[in-house]
Amino acid sequence: MRTRNRKPRGAHRFAYGGLDRIIHERARLGVLTSLIAHPKGLSFGDLKELCALTDGNLSRHLQVLEQAKLVEVRKGYEGNRPQTLCRITAQGRRRYLEYLAVLEQVIMDAAAAAKLGTSFS
Amino acid sequence: MRTRNRKPRGAHRFAYGGLDRIIHERARLGVLTSLIAHPKGLSFGDLKELCALTDGNLSRHLQVLEQAKLVEVRKGYEGNRPQTLCRITAQGRRRYLEYLAVLEQVIMDAAAAAKLGTSFS
Repeated sequence: MRTRNRKPRGAHRFAYGGLDRIIHERARLGVLTSLIAHPKGLSFGDLKELCALTDGNLSRHLQVLEQAKLVEVRKGYEGNRPQTLCRITAQGRRRYLEYLAVLEQVIMDAAAAAKLGTSFS
Repeated sequence: MRTRNRKPRGAHRFAYGGLDRIIHERARLGVLTSLIAHPKGLSFGDLKELCALTDGNLSRHLQVLEQAKLVEVRKGYEGNRPQTLCRITAQGRRRYLEYLAVLEQVIMDAAAAAKLGTSFS
């Protein structure tokens, strides 16, 4: 196996520091994407179903997201039934969109790279 | 805070099971994207620089990727100097591309959702 002698350009080019770890974690990415798709909020039960998470897992991830002020979780009512409601905050929305921009960069890098790989390897 | 009465369609719609955790981890995503962009391989030093990782971190992540057969790490020479060379495997390339397809789905979901959010919230 040989490497090219040419040095790779751009130190830290693939560091992707903007991929906020709180948002990047797979389950939380699903939760936030669900919530951004439902800006008026989702019940705990619906969110659990959409993201295929257990009660325990969803609770744990919501706690992380709530502490980071990305979502708010409130007790409310659906008719007469008590219900836990989850909603993305304005800050959550803003940070999610920033995260998305970095994710798009990864995809563009990867798509460009994969194309190069096809022609050269 | 009120939710809509309408149930969200599509159970597990936002589960993103295809986001392979081995690839999704931020540092490893950077490593694999670097390696797919350099199909002939990168030295440990160049990879470290591109991904802004410490020796210890890069070693640890390479070990995970090597055990999963996504990369191969070999001792080689650059001129007369011994050098550790890292390269993505054929399997690594295939799984990375599968992962990318799911990532693109997340972006499309998110972009559609963010647009909805703008008009309705």
